[in-house]
Amino acid sequence: MTTRTETDSMGPIAVPSDRYWGAQTQRSLHHFDIGDDVMPRELIRAFGILKRSAAVTNRNLDKLDAAKAELIVQAADEVIAGTLDDHFPLRVWQTGSGTQTNMNANEVIANRAIELAGGELGSKTPIHPNDHVNCGQSSNDTFPTGMHIAAVEQLVHQLLPSVRRLRDALDAQAQAFADIIKIGRTHLMDAVPLTLGQEFSGYVAQLDKAIYRIEESLPELYELALGGTAVGTGLNTHPDFAEQVAAEIARYTELPFVSAPNKFAALAAHDGIAATSGTLKTLAAALMKIANDLRWLGSGPRCGLGELKLPANEPGSSIMPGKVNPTQCEAMTMVCVQVMGNDAAISIAASQGNFELNVFKPVMIHNLLHSIRLLTDACRAFTDFLVVGLEPDREQIQQFLENSLMLVTALNPAIGYDKAAQVAKKAYVENTTLRSACVALGFLTGEEFDRQVQPNQMV
Amino acid sequence: MTTRTETDSMGPIAVPSDRYWGAQTQRSLHHFDIGDDVMPRELIRAFGILKRSAAVTNRNLDKLDAAKAELIVQAADEVIAGTLDDHFPLRVWQTGSGTQTNMNANEVIANRAIELAGGELGSKTPIHPNDHVNCGQSSNDTFPTGMHIAAVEQLVHQLLPSVRRLRDALDAQAQAFADIIKIGRTHLMDAVPLTLGQEFSGYVAQLDKAIYRIEESLPELYELALGGTAVGTGLNTHPDFAEQVAAEIARYTELPFVSAPNKFAALAAHDGIAATSGTLKTLAAALMKIANDLRWLGSGPRCGLGELKLPANEPGSSIMPGKVNPTQCEAMTMVCVQVMGNDAAISIAASQGNFELNVFKPVMIHNLLHSIRLLTDACRAFTDFLVVGLEPDREQIQQFLENSLMLVTALNPAIGYDKAAQVAKKAYVENTTLRSACVALGFLTGEEFDRQVQPNQMV
Amino acid sequence: MTTRTETDSMGPIAVPSDRYWGAQTQRSLHHFDIGDDVMPRELIRAFGILKRSAAVTNRNLDKLDAAKAELIVQAADEVIAGTLDDHFPLRVWQTGSGTQTNMNANEVIANRAIELAGGELGSKTPIHPNDHVNCGQSSNDTFPTGMHIAAVEQLVHQLLPSVRRLRDALDAQAQAFADIIKIGRTHLMDAVPLTLGQEFSGYVAQLDKAIYRIEESLPELYELALGGTAVGTGLNTHPDFAEQVAAEIARYTELPFVSAPNKFAALAAHDGIAATSGTLKTLAAALMKIANDLRWLGSGPRCGLGELKLPANEPGSSIMPGKVNPTQCEAMTMVCVQVMGNDAAISIAASQGNFELNVFKPVMIHNLLHSIRLLTDACRAFTDFLVVGLEPDREQIQQFLENSLMLVTALNPAIGYDKAAQVAKKAYVENTTLRSACVALGFLTGEEFDRQVQPNQMV
Amino acid sequence: MTTRTETDSMGPIAVPSDRYWGAQTQRSLHHFDIGDDVMPRELIRAFGILKRSAAVTNRNLDKLDAAKAELIVQAADEVIAGTLDDHFPLRVWQTGSGTQTNMNANEVIANRAIELAGGELGSKTPIHPNDHVNCGQSSNDTFPTGMHIAAVEQLVHQLLPSVRRLRDALDAQAQAFADIIKIGRTHLMDAVPLTLGQEFSGYVAQLDKAIYRIEESLPELYELALGGTAVGTGLNTHPDFAEQVAAEIARYTELPFVSAPNKFAALAAHDGIAATSGTLKTLAAALMKIANDLRWLGSGPRCGLGELKLPANEPGSSIMPGKVNPTQCEAMTMVCVQVMGNDAAISIAASQGNFELNVFKPVMIHNLLHSIRLLTDACRAFTDFLVVGLEPDREQIQQFLENSLMLVTALNPAIGYDKAAQVAKKAYVENTTLRSACVALGFLTGEEFDRQVQPNQMV
Repeated sequence: MTTRTETDSMGPIAVPSDRYWGAQTQRSLHHFDIGDDVMPRELIRAFGILKRSAAVTNRNLDKLDAAKAELIVQAADEVIAGTLDDHFPLRVWQTGSGTQTNMNANEVIANRAIELAGGELGSKTPIHPNDHVNCGQSSNDTFPTGMHIAAVEQLVHQLLPSVRRLRDALDAQAQAFADIIKIGRTHLMDAVPLTLGQEFSGYVAQLDKAIYRIEESLPELYELALGGTAVGTGLNTHPDFAEQVAAEIARYTELPFVSAPNKFAALAAHDGIAATSGTLKTLAAALMKIANDLRWLGSGPRCGLGELKLPANEPGSSIMPGKVNPTQCEAMTMVCVQVMGNDAAISIAASQGNFELNVFKPVMIHNLLHSIRLLTDACRAFTDFLVVGLEPDREQIQQFLENSLMLVTALNPAIGYDKAAQVAKKAYVENTTLRSACVALGFLTGEEFDRQVQPNQMV
Repeated sequence: MTTRTETDSMGPIAVPSDRYWGAQTQRSLHHFDIGDDVMPRELIRAFGILKRSAAVTNRNLDKLDAAKAELIVQAADEVIAGTLDDHFPLRVWQTGSGTQTNMNANEVIANRAIELAGGELGSKTPIHPNDHVNCGQSSNDTFPTGMHIAAVEQLVHQLLPSVRRLRDALDAQAQAFADIIKIGRTHLMDAVPLTLGQEFSGYVAQLDKAIYRIEESLPELYELALGGTAVGTGLNTHPDFAEQVAAEIARYTELPFVSAPNKFAALAAHDGIAATSGTLKTLAAALMKIANDLRWLGSGPRCGLGELKLPANEPGSSIMPGKVNPTQCEAMTMVCVQVMGNDAAISIAASQGNFELNVFKPVMIHNLLHSIRLLTDACRAFTDFLVVGLEPDREQIQQFLENSLMLVTALNPAIGYDKAAQVAKKAYVENTTLRSACVALGFLTGEEFDRQVQPNQMV
Repeated sequence: MTTRTETDSMGPIAVPSDRYWGAQTQRSLHHFDIGDDVMPRELIRAFGILKRSAAVTNRNLDKLDAAKAELIVQAADEVIAGTLDDHFPLRVWQTGSGTQTNMNANEVIANRAIELAGGELGSKTPIHPNDHVNCGQSSNDTFPTGMHIAAVEQLVHQLLPSVRRLRDALDAQAQAFADIIKIGRTHLMDAVPLTLGQEFSGYVAQLDKAIYRIEESLPELYELALGGTAVGTGLNTHPDFAEQVAAEIARYTELPFVSAPNKFAALAAHDGIAATSGTLKTLAAALMKIANDLRWLGSGPRCGLGELKLPANEPGSSIMPGKVNPTQCEAMTMVCVQVMGNDAAISIAASQGNFELNVFKPVMIHNLLHSIRLLTDACRAFTDFLVVGLEPDREQIQQFLENSLMLVTALNPAIGYDKAAQVAKKAYVENTTLRSACVALGFLTGEEFDRQVQPNQMV
Repeated sequence: MTTRTETDSMGPIAVPSDRYWGAQTQRSLHHFDIGDDVMPRELIRAFGILKRSAAVTNRNLDKLDAAKAELIVQAADEVIAGTLDDHFPLRVWQTGSGTQTNMNANEVIANRAIELAGGELGSKTPIHPNDHVNCGQSSNDTFPTGMHIAAVEQLVHQLLPSVRRLRDALDAQAQAFADIIKIGRTHLMDAVPLTLGQEFSGYVAQLDKAIYRIEESLPELYELALGGTAVGTGLNTHPDFAEQVAAEIARYTELPFVSAPNKFAALAAHDGIAATSGTLKTLAAALMKIANDLRWLGSGPRCGLGELKLPANEPGSSIMPGKVNPTQCEAMTMVCVQVMGNDAAISIAASQGNFELNVFKPVMIHNLLHSIRLLTDACRAFTDFLVVGLEPDREQIQQFLENSLMLVTALNPAIGYDKAAQVAKKAYVENTTLRSACVALGFLTGEEFDRQVQPNQMV
């Protein structure tokens, strides 16, 4: 491996010749060879956006000359596009402010800009990673800004559309199943009837709320820390920088970012990230309920509930031929469990700030983006490979409905709870129908019973 | 102990003569002698409110005659007032629908109403626990309704005022400390300065958001399940019952309750409870940060940071005389940890619904009300016994400020990051001042340095 | 309320005349009016044991004269017996070292001893709460000692016997069900058969391991911090105190307590508590699986799996007459969820020690004892009111077994996986039997099929 | 991309020509395009080991002819070596039994074996993925076996050595610092003294226990599910297979694996995985305490505690020149938080088994191996780049010691707690020394004070 020499305030260090990164990135690689988790690509993209926007803003504020700004913009555009991803090797498990990733961005953009200008890599001329790319910034305000940009982009462009598609697919099934009367189940036990469409409408209602909660979590994330610099006071940055750079980021991303009203909180705490994770955890709880319901309703084919037929996407067993399993439900419930674990990590991390800085930033954004990605993809697969292909087994549904003893509830208004209970018990013990038990007990005639107990009047 | 006989669909059972509860409550006592946690009083009160409102509504809808309704209202009023609390002995750890607590309410109200009417306890005449007190209701819609009423009342009347008081007390200190310039700390290490008021403004900003999030969680909790009865279809209840009973509850509580638009979700899931717990967990993360900061800033008195003097409320040690500890911070951080644990329990419980019912209702409301109570009380004690009594140690603060090396950051615009780093390193290694190091390195004259480095210009 | 005056290093304060507690307890009541959770009774008892043992040891070491020691022993015996419980009003949410509860014990024992000696309450003569009751101790070593004594007593005398009883009850059912061949279910889908006894043997195996893990966690808890005093060095205590007091506690409790080999860790960390909670969380996971299985196997009675009949302990519904629900399973699963939440709180608390002390002690022991109590009681109720009354529905089990398609797996050795899959698929699509499908496909004759597929050979 | 046709019981499907995987892997790629998390390499290696060992065992039991077995062994050896890693593309988020990864292993080994034999990829001749590679196995017993092998190998060969190295490095520092007397801190407040070596000995004691707990968790993981096949009965496998294959795996890995005594539990539950995660979570709590202590002791350089000098590994700030941060502590604490989150996910997953199978296997092993890897690497970096380079600042330590008021505790035996408290308070309020306050109060002469208060006698 050929190398070149890069320097920082600690001195020179050898860096691979074919990489744009500089001394601080190289030191981090050495000191933080921990696990496989690299900083999420979505965050690197966000750094590209913010470095670009900072250069534009600094130029507008006469803190950076136009030529330098243009070089930085060009290099940052490549970061945004993802073509420089190989130059961002740093791990999540580094300094808790994400300083090394901010420096990674500064170094890569500086060296790429130097290259574009025909300069020498590592020379910091004409573009210096700190003085120019990081101009008017600190890791302490850039990293939280990157966290918010990345989270918002993924929530708005990935997760919300995916959850909405699932919601719509469930709603379409709710409509399609609107006329199918089935036995209800509470405590897993037979209960009074409802329609299959009504059952699905509950899932739709859960997702409607989940979507709303995620949307409501966005305004807090639209607030950006940039302009706070090292501790929130905005030292070494132009007084208009904060507002203008937020506006530039909003313009570029077409998302309504604004400058955070209190920069001290924006650096020292990430409650907005924790709150957003709380909404994802709640979405996960909802999806777990839905996925569990669908796999139970599809259980069988002969020794389960069997009210739904799930699509047979793949062979289910390496030993039991012909077995088909509710695999999409299993992937979904595993994702939900992971999202709950990720939320636990985020919550603890959010509580651990000290004074002017929370130094659990990388672990927070790593987990949040992980949760967003998993939920996005799982909802898509769940929609495409399970929900749209669901089919009711009308015969099985009808058979359960007819056999159930809980239709007895419809007798309450006619004969009262206590007598109705006697009817149900007699039918259960004698393994007979409610009707014959009710008539035998002399509570109603058969005709009266039939008038009273009509499943289609009970839903 | 003298007893009387009560009956339910399973037969007769002996009940203490001096208690209003009936057969089902008695059976639950026998079968669920688990732990000490009784159903929260706030939930029992909520049951009083909903039973009262149901009676009024059923009377208005001609489902209950006026005399019976009046008796139920009178008895329910006593439940609301708390005078019948001794008649609600059931544990949290019972059936997961809370059926036994709904029956406890039905039985106590029925027997107390019977007594008011001069009837015989246990006779179910003139008031029957199921047919009259539970008229048009099911455990499955009453319990979630009780959960929401209890949670909203505690959030609106207890937690929010308590957090707002703390927020205001911190804000008052932020104003009082506005002119105190102090060293900032990032990564626990000396950083550039800010004012003590700015530091406190960050806490205020965190609590402002926390308050907003809790307020935003209320609309979901205003939606009531009543009218859904057993599975959400509203079987055995008047078609107008749901809307009217919600309106009656709103009128009575003076809180904007409405009928839940989808009753299936309202019984089978409690995502709103989980989401609210998520906002409490986020509040806990914020409070943990604040409490940790204050105890660290108050650490010492001679071997810590010592920038704040904390009120000395009690002797701190049984062996070390004269020791005073940051006990309010410790109580608060323990509460925060508990709230995070409670949130974990709530989240798992929220994910475990099946079909038409989630049967983890009691554990969810137990934990939510526990979190609300602890946060309410801890915020109050923290305000009264800590925040309002905080005093800065101006001498200590000034001494740190003058000694810090991180004022070097103010040199960046003048001499660039790399040279500034040399200054700081030289001053650190030689244990001297930044000024003399900078002059010795020939970067600036003493006068230039003084113009550049002015802490009061850095905040 | 009549009061007397008590004093501490902060001055005088009025205390209720009919209470033994002193000034520091009274201050704590005022400053920590947070929630309802009082210090667990089991911990108060443990404080009685350790104060008694300390007095005996100090007497033996000539640090306390025999008369004083005897008075302390008498008063401590009343604390152990529980007759002074009303004098321990302090909340969990106090100082994180539990200092105020240690002082509560010192004060109550001192005043009760003074009373026994005919002295004046509050006079600290002849027994001083700090100098005599707390002789050679600190909150920092007494509280962790109390935590360990309380945890061990509850684990050994309560939880382990309760889990063992459940284990034995499940094992008895495993024996009783040994000959019942049933369909297996994997992924909730029909699989190859096993016996109902084998299914239950899995539960027994899970509990065997759980019991073993809890037993293995005990040695760490047998190690006591006493003798470390304020920071672990044992300042102000006799060099032999640590060993002798541990031996005295072991003698008194008949449990093999020893002195912790490293007192610094014993004060500053409570990893043993966290580890024990980890074993309880794992037990909870096992119990959740078992409880879920049993309620699913008992689902129905007509629209579920219905392989087991669960005891009908109480009416299940306030609206659906005759409904019986798996309520013991629901109480158990709620308990399991709570134990997982408690474990989360304990884990976070365990991580938050600083320097010579972890100040999250009360929240840790509160949650641990809560988990122990809930698991103890829930296992007992689950055994008595569910497991011992379980009955198989042999008819239903047989019917499922005969219908299942997964018996096809027995054909693999004869015709290979791919052909066996064809057989299963044909039988499923044409709603016929495996036998006729296999014969129709020409893979085997009927006789060959019958020889190959024998459920009783498959288990 | 050129493709070939592979088939399974669902029919033909196109597979990339340059990949060994077959139809089921290809279907999984299509249906489970969820996130980036691929099955951990350590698990793939474990599958190589178990497939190899199964082939050897089946040959010994005459279930597989020697030539076929040899081909499988050769192919499996390549899986073990990692050279076929590119042929294992499946995601964690798939079927919850890991069936698709078991089939991925079966398919890759079969096709590679076919290639070695000169056959045609996809022909299943001479090696069939199900009939030969999966001979006598099921996903349901192979996957848990793979989980255990992978976990044990990583624990024994990676984590334990890494934690032991850290423990030894801390112990070396404890020895080196044995004579440095310093002020203790409890509640963050000045307390009585101890030596820096004693403080570090607490860390060593915590890690000693952590190591012991992990070692104790191994025996449960040594138990392998293989031989249980689909539901635990061992259908379709030789009666001696279970014992012999465990012995073969033990022989090959040189680790004491045995056959699980109860196969039903081994498939339906993974309590051993959850228990192991509990020990890792406890280790994380210990490491978080240690890392926090070290960064606080190193805080400053001029406005913190400053008792330790931490190695300066990299520039700490992109805006504050010369700043050095406790970055190893930050990476470590982030890792600890992640391990706690992972444990939450594992615990929930462990509780969610149904009947004969837990279908949260992949999420469990993913999180467990993630935790092991992160702890392994973080302990290594923490040792090498932090602990071995720690240096005490003896001057700062001495200054704190001399100033502290808590040396007053040494007066308790001489003048009692109450008078000692007066001394401390007077010295604090008047900003003077304990000695002069004590003399001024007339409690002791200066000489008596000096005899009583000797820090080196207090540790």
